[in-house]
Order: sequence, then structure tokens, then C-alpha cells
Amino acid sequence: MGSFKGHALPGSLFLVAGIWWTGKYSLLHAIRKNKNIGSTRFASRASQRRLEIFENSVILFFSFVGMVAEQFVADGPRLHLYDFTEKHWKYLHNWQHATMYLFFGLAAIVSLIVHAAEAAPLALDRLMLGIAFFNEGFLFLYHLHGRSMLDVHVHQLLLYAVFGQALIACLETFHRGNVILELLRCTLTLLQGSWFWEIGFVLYPPSGPEWDLNDHSNMMFITMCYSWHLAFAMLVVGVLYCTISSMVRSRLKRTPPVEMGLLKMQERDAESEDENL
Amino acid sequence: MGSFKGHALPGSLFLVAGIWWTGKYSLLHAIRKNKNIGSTRFASRASQRRLEIFENSVILFFSFVGMVAEQFVADGPRLHLYDFTEKHWKYLHNWQHATMYLFFGLAAIVSLIVHAAEAAPLALDRLMLGIAFFNEGFLFLYHLHGRSMLDVHVHQLLLYAVFGQALIACLETFHRGNVILELLRCTLTLLQGSWFWEIGFVLYPPSGPEWDLNDHSNMMFITMCYSWHLAFAMLVVGVLYCTISSMVRSRLKRTPPVEMGLLKMQERDAESEDENL
Amino acid sequence: MGSFKGHALPGSLFLVAGIWWTGKYSLLHAIRKNKNIGSTRFASRASQRRLEIFENSVILFFSFVGMVAEQFVADGPRLHLYDFTEKHWKYLHNWQHATMYLFFGLAAIVSLIVHAAEAAPLALDRLMLGIAFFNEGFLFLYHLHGRSMLDVHVHQLLLYAVFGQALIACLETFHRGNVILELLRCTLTLLQGSWFWEIGFVLYPPSGPEWDLNDHSNMMFITMCYSWHLAFAMLVVGVLYCTISSMVRSRLKRTPPVEMGLLKMQERDAESEDENL
Amino acid sequence: MGSFKGHALPGSLFLVAGIWWTGKYSLLHAIRKNKNIGSTRFASRASQRRLEIFENSVILFFSFVGMVAEQFVADGPRLHLYDFTEKHWKYLHNWQHATMYLFFGLAAIVSLIVHAAEAAPLALDRLMLGIAFFNEGFLFLYHLHGRSMLDVHVHQLLLYAVFGQALIACLETFHRGNVILELLRCTLTLLQGSWFWEIGFVLYPPSGPEWDLNDHSNMMFITMCYSWHLAFAMLVVGVLYCTISSMVRSRLKRTPPVEMGLLKMQERDAESEDENL
Repeated sequence: MGSFKGHALPGSLFLVAGIWWTGKYSLLHAIRKNKNIGSTRFASRASQRRLEIFENSVILFFSFVGMVAEQFVADGPRLHLYDFTEKHWKYLHNWQHATMYLFFGLAAIVSLIVHAAEAAPLALDRLMLGIAFFNEGFLFLYHLHGRSMLDVHVHQLLLYAVFGQALIACLETFHRGNVILELLRCTLTLLQGSWFWEIGFVLYPPSGPEWDLNDHSNMMFITMCYSWHLAFAMLVVGVLYCTISSMVRSRLKRTPPVEMGLLKMQERDAESEDENL
Repeated sequence: MGSFKGHALPGSLFLVAGIWWTGKYSLLHAIRKNKNIGSTRFASRASQRRLEIFENSVILFFSFVGMVAEQFVADGPRLHLYDFTEKHWKYLHNWQHATMYLFFGLAAIVSLIVHAAEAAPLALDRLMLGIAFFNEGFLFLYHLHGRSMLDVHVHQLLLYAVFGQALIACLETFHRGNVILELLRCTLTLLQGSWFWEIGFVLYPPSGPEWDLNDHSNMMFITMCYSWHLAFAMLVVGVLYCTISSMVRSRLKRTPPVEMGLLKMQERDAESEDENL
Repeated sequence: MGSFKGHALPGSLFLVAGIWWTGKYSLLHAIRKNKNIGSTRFASRASQRRLEIFENSVILFFSFVGMVAEQFVADGPRLHLYDFTEKHWKYLHNWQHATMYLFFGLAAIVSLIVHAAEAAPLALDRLMLGIAFFNEGFLFLYHLHGRSMLDVHVHQLLLYAVFGQALIACLETFHRGNVILELLRCTLTLLQGSWFWEIGFVLYPPSGPEWDLNDHSNMMFITMCYSWHLAFAMLVVGVLYCTISSMVRSRLKRTPPVEMGLLKMQERDAESEDENL
Repeated sequence: MGSFKGHALPGSLFLVAGIWWTGKYSLLHAIRKNKNIGSTRFASRASQRRLEIFENSVILFFSFVGMVAEQFVADGPRLHLYDFTEKHWKYLHNWQHATMYLFFGLAAIVSLIVHAAEAAPLALDRLMLGIAFFNEGFLFLYHLHGRSMLDVHVHQLLLYAVFGQALIACLETFHRGNVILELLRCTLTLLQGSWFWEIGFVLYPPSGPEWDLNDHSNMMFITMCYSWHLAFAMLVVGVLYCTISSMVRSRLKRTPPVEMGLLKMQERDAESEDENL
């Protein structure tokens, strides 16, 4: 990417995704926990499925836009990859980013198939997400050859978050609906997002002096900084989770379930998708 | 191996194995899922066992042929290993390949014992497959000393697929019959197969110019290429799975079960082997 | 930290924590095991919760004191981090230690929320403890650049204990109340504590000659020493566990349960928190 | 150790241990499988416990003899460790080997406490065995500094078997009585034993020429050799398992259970220890 914007853009996308997921999983967990006092009014199985379809359509849209943008921006490859006159590869970075988008797009398509058509095992959506994150980390891993010390270090730190997400998504394939795994994944998504911004500020400072990329004390500061980002991400997830939990509970107290007969009928169809493994 | 053919041959074998396994596991999964509408007509337990015996006989045959071929080809070792006159090892590569075949042969023999004689725990067939893949990766790992950068890199990428298969086969020892693990293993088998072809094209291009084996941009392109191979393998597995699932379902609708009494009798004996852990 | 005291202080804290945890888990396990002969008199669910709140308040207090002390000791940073006149980072070590304390403080706060307010999933306290240990190990890992061989080696050995604790705490998130995991974690906590003392004696010997930090035989001796510390920690945990187990059993024999009716009422509310996952 | 005998001795011990364990686990598995035709006559719970006590007494005895022998052989340390006149460590290798024996001795003591006194959780015996193997591997890992290439390589290959055993013993802590894990551990024990002999033959050839320790083709041959040792170990375990299984079955057919009433009484007390987790 090589620019401040090129890091701020994915950073913002991951921050939005992290906040969205935190909200979604907190809400679903609060609803599951308060089933006995009629919480299932708020989320029938059909509405959950609509939510998943909406979410994955948005991811698919952004992946597609990302792929097209990487190809057709001002100095993009326009589907060229090899320069036959000078005999070397061109635009490798654009193609690598497009490949990352491709895998997130594939994950979204599989999720749509899983939730809309129900033609595949449910756990496949998490596996594909895990593979998409793994692929992102894998391409970053072989991206770092020959850069300066601090540049390599900040990207390596990013890889902790990326491979962490991949690992947790794969664990969720087997332990679906475990709220602790879900919130941990949200935390790492937020961490990845805010760390992309940090990388932008460190490598391409929009104002102020350049950083010395070979100073060891800078590297130690950056490592500590990563811990602070993690603490901040945990704080955001914690506050969001508590807010949504208490909102669901207070709303349930204000509006008691009207008819028990009606409720029972709803409940049967309102079971969470995650419980139908 | 050191030749285009030497990489294309195992590549083709793994591609065929990957497609065969994808078909088998998709079919068995479709049958398990549609049990309640009479799918068990298509695969009684006895026919499943015959399938396993057939499959492992073929693997055993090819392993044996492979071992013999490695020993008795034109410039093969003919069971010699040490040159006493010049005091050094000869034909180490042929012997290493024969050792790889040996472990796949052992896995096939154990599978035959497990499925034909039922004298050993069922999960042993996956464990032996995992050990065979692990052994393959292990021998490749210490195979790479002193080669050029790109040569080492393409073989390291191959190891991701090989050790991935070993790991998943070991997981299947404990979670047998999990369709997600099975399809993931098929994907990695296809990836290994197509990547063997890619290695052949890169290191021994049958036509066109040689690749510069020490150019860093070649290495970055190859890394991205690996992602594309993975995406392609996932696509093949996905299409095969969906085709077979819908074929099973449509055939079940056309030919409804004739007699329920008969069916129940069949069902009792038609249980999948995997469920009798 | 760079002083004998700076290693002896955390060493003592971890030793105390290790002994406290060993006692706590041994007692709870002995009570669970002897439920049928009335052991639950000794630990109702309410008293368990009070214990957890007490423990985490103490941890929170020490974390806060630690953070403040690191900032405001004689030559501390007093919240300064960057020297604008000389343009470099100052007091990085103090800030890193404060960050470590911060994560243990966060873990204590989350534990208090989990056990006092019951507003979050129970397993979260172990996850946060695991993250706190992981963060400690992570900061130590990037702490070692450019030191002498033996200095690096003793800190690497420390990391085995730290990451071991992180790993086991994460496993406990899924297998809560497994006494083997709990005692193993206690053993590693004691190991970490006594190893901090060892590091102090090796790098900053309070009396006697300096160690040669680049002598290979010193390194081999230290490695063996680490094994002895581990054996010693296992011994302490073993003796404590056996003492507490037999004390609980002998006390139960001396004072038989008075009234069965009363007991049954107590038992209902006396269930261990860990069983209410 | 530095001698042919010094490698042949532990090699023989591990070979004997591997064959003993294979026999034990095969027998127990055959008895569990054939319970319904009266196999429990052959192994009541009391006799199983006696077997464990016998086995661990033997291990304890050999560990003690090993520790004493390492200290008091002709040129041993006799409990000296530091040479105060020349100011350096002496006899580090003897002390390291004694430390390895110490951990196996500790594992045996804990096993005796677990099986004889029943004062501790059953799974602890496997955990201690895992820690003993881990400790062995750990000391070997930091044992290799500054040796020649082939010397390092053969010891690294040994570590695969050692850490493999440690890992499987730890897995058995959670999945006790899984015959596949047990036989896999036996295979690795045999592999470790035969590989110790191989190391002796390579580094200290009792007859014939010395090996060139820096020749790369030697290293490749040794790697392949390791695969053959593994195949051989698997063969031995497989043959032993099949022999014992069929012996148990044939003996059961010859001597049918005499009285059903008597049998039922026995069966109640004859349950395998492993099932009483």
C-alpha cells in the first residue's frame, strides 16, 4: 500500500466490522440468556437469518469493490501482471491485496449459501472466515522481505491479531455459539483495525517528523503500544457488551410478554440458529 | 526427482485422490443427512466396506508399483544404497521416494485390516494416513539443504499442504465422520496435487525461458499463486459437493421408498461405519 | 528492572500467589470430593464468592500500587515518556512494567464483575488471567534485544513458565474446575516466582563474585537448575495438596453432620460455582 | 554420555519399556473389548492395581540406581558439581542425566501414590510421565551447543520421539484409556529406544570406519533411517497387538465361563480402573 490512506482504509473497515460483530454477538447472547423471560420476541430465527444475509451481502459488496478498486485505480494494474518488455512482475502489491479481498468475498458467498440456501453444513461459514484471515496473514508473512527493522516489526505484531482471528474462527467451527470465543475474535478484529491506523501513523506520519525505523527504543515503545491497543480493544468490547446486556434486560422488564400461549408458539420457531447444529 | 515428469506424476496421483475422496465423503454425507427419506438404500454398511477395501487395494497397488519403479527404473538403485568403492551414499532420492510410498502402503494395509478383518480400532486408518503424510512432509523438510531460494520456497509452500493434511487426519482420529474436516482434507489434497504441477512448471519449465530462482519478485508472485491454487481447490470441492448433494436429493424424490417394512430392516444394517465408533 | 530487588519483589509476589492458589484449589477439590459425607458445610457458594472477591480485590490493590510505584519512585517517569529535548523515549522499562501490572489489574476487575455482579460469563476470569500472563510474556519476549547470552537465556527460561500459565489459563476457560490443570498452573506460578529470585541471584549477585555471562557451561548449569526449580515447585504443590486433603478428611470424621434435614437445605445453595457453568 | 555403551543402555531400557507397555495396553484393551464373553476373569481391578504398583516400583528402582550410578561411577562427580579451585562447573553431563532419572523417579512415586493410596486424581500419573518426558527433551535441547552437524541432527531427531511422547502422555491426561493414543506412545517409546542404539552406532561406531559428521549426504541418509525405525516400531507394535488380541480371544473360546452367578459378582469389582475416572 505504501501510504497513510492505504492503511487507514482497511483499519476503518476492520474497526467497523469489530464493533458490528461485538454488537451482534452481545445481543444474541443476551437474548439466549434471557429466554425464560420472553427475550425471543426480539430475534426469531427468521430475523437472525436475515441479519446474516444482510451482513454477508455487505461483506461481499465491499470485497468486490475492493478487488475492482485495486485493479482500476489511477496507477493500478488493469488486470496486467507481467511486463513482457522488461521481463518482470508488476503491480504485485495490488494483486496481493485483491487476493485478500477475494478470500473474504469467497467467505461471504459461502456464508450466503449456508444461511440462505441451507445447502451446506452451518459451521462452514466460520471455517471460511478462518481461511480468509489465514490467507491474509500468510500473504503478509511473505510481504516483509528486505524492509527496515521497525517496518517488519509493526507488521509482525499485526500478524498476531490476524492469525489469532484465524485460529479462533477455526475453533468456532467446533465450538459454535461460545460467547467467549466470539467476543475474543471481536477484540482481535478491533485490535487489527486500530493497529492498521497505528502502522499508518508510524510509517507514513501525516504530520510531524519521520520515525527512525532502525532505533531499538522505538521498537520497544511500539511493542508496549500494541499492549495498550489490546487493552483499549478489550475495554470497547467490554463496555459494548455490558451496555447491550443491560439494555435488553431493562427493555424486557418494561414490556412483559403479553400472552403466554402466543409466546410458546413463537418460541418454537425462534430458536437460535446456532443451537441447531 | 529433478524433472518435470517427476513432479507431474505425484501431482496427478494426488489430484485423482483428492477428487475421489471429495466424491466419496460428499456422497456419504448426503446419505447420512437424508436418512429419514430412505437414502440408506444407496449405501448399506456392507457396500461401504467394499468401497473402503477397493480404495485401499488401489492405494496399496500404486504404493507397491511406486516402490518397485523407484528401485528398478533405468538409472535406479536396484536395492543398492552405498557405493563401497567411492565410499558415499548413492540414489538417496530414489530411496527417499520409496520410503514415502512405503508409508502410504503401510497405511493402506492397516486400513485393509481395519475394514476387512475388523481386528483393530476403526480410527486407526486415519491415524496411519496422518503418519504417512507426516512422514512425507518430514522427508521433504530435510530435503532442501543448499538449494536456491525459489526452489526452497516452493517446496516449503508444499509443506503447508502436506502437514495440514497430516494434522487434519490426526484430528479425524478423534472426530471421525466430521464432514468439514473431511472436505478440508480433500481441499488440501487437491492443493498438494496442483502445486506439484506448479513446481514442475516453475523449476523445470517444459517450454519457454527459465525462471530466475533468486529474484525476490518471483517469490512474491509464487506466494500469491499458492493462494490462487487454494481458492481453486476450494472451488472444485465446493462444486463437487453441491452437485453430489443435489443429485442424491433429486434421485431420492424420483424413486420413493417402496415398502416401509422392508426399509426398516435395511436401515438397521445400513448404518454408516463411522457411527459405530 | 536491573537490580536484585527488582527481581526479588515480583518473585515473592508470584510465590505467595502460587501458594495461595494451591491452597484454594486443593481445599475446593477436597470439598467437592467429600460432598457425600457433608463437606459442603465448610464452603457454601456464598463463601466461595466472598473468597473470590477478596482475592481479586487484593490483586487489584497490588496492581494499582505497582503501577503507581513504577511511575512515582525516586527516578521514575512521573507519567513522562518522551524526552522532547533529546528526542528519544525515556523510562521505557518502568512503563513496560506498569503495563504488565495494568493487565493483571484488568483481569482482577473483570473477575470482580464476574463474581460480584454476575453480569458476564463465568469463564471470563480465566481468559483474562490467560491474557494477562500472555501479555507479560509478550513484553518480556521483545525485552531481550542485545543482552548477553546468559541474560537472554534465563529470561527465555522464564518465558516457558509464563506462556505455560497463559496456555493453561486459556484451557481452563473450556475445562473449568479440572483440578489437574489448576494444580499445574499453581506449579508454574511457583516456578515463575522462584525463578525470578534465581535471575536476581545470577544477574545481580548480592554477594560473592559476578557470573561470567558468556560461559557456555554456566548456561548448561542454569538449564539444569530450571529443572530442579520445577521439581521443587511440584514438591511444594504435592505436599500442600496432600496436607489439605487429609486435614479436610480428618476434620470431617471428627465432626459428623448434625442434622440431615438442615444439611440438605444447605447443600442446595452450597454447590460449587464451578459446577454452574 | 560420549560412549557407545552410554547410548545403548538407555536405548535398551526404552526398548524394554516400549514392549512392556505395548503388551500391557493390548491386553487391557482386549479384555475391555471382550467383556461380554467373560474376559474380566483375567484381570480384576485388584490385579490391575497390583500390575501398576509392580511396574512403577521397577521404574522407581531403575531411576534410583541410575541416579546413584551417574554419581558414583569410576569418574563420576560423587555429589561434587563446582570446582572451586579452577572456578568452573564439572560433571555437568552426569548431573543432567541424574536429573532426567530424577523426574522419571518422581513420576513413578506419584503413580504409586495414585494407584496404591488413591489419594490423588487418577490422571496425574500420565501428567507426571508427560512432564518427565518433557524434562528429558528440554535438557537434551540445550545439550547440543557447539557440536558437529550430524551429532546435532541425530539428537534433534531423537527429540521428535521424546516430545511426541510428552505430548501424547499429556493428551492421555484428558483422554485416558484411548487405545490409539496408548499404542502411539508405545511406538514412540520403541522408536526412542532403537534410535538411541542408532546414535551409538553412528557417533561411536564399535567397529568399522568413523562417519564423516559434516557430510550432507550422511544427514539425508540418517533422516531416511529415522523413517525406517518408525516403520519398524509400528510393525513391532502391530504384531504384538494382533498376537495378544487373538490369544485372548482363543483362550476365551476354549474355557467358557463356568457359573454366571459367580461371574456377575466378579464383574462388579473387575471394572477397569480407567473407567472410574
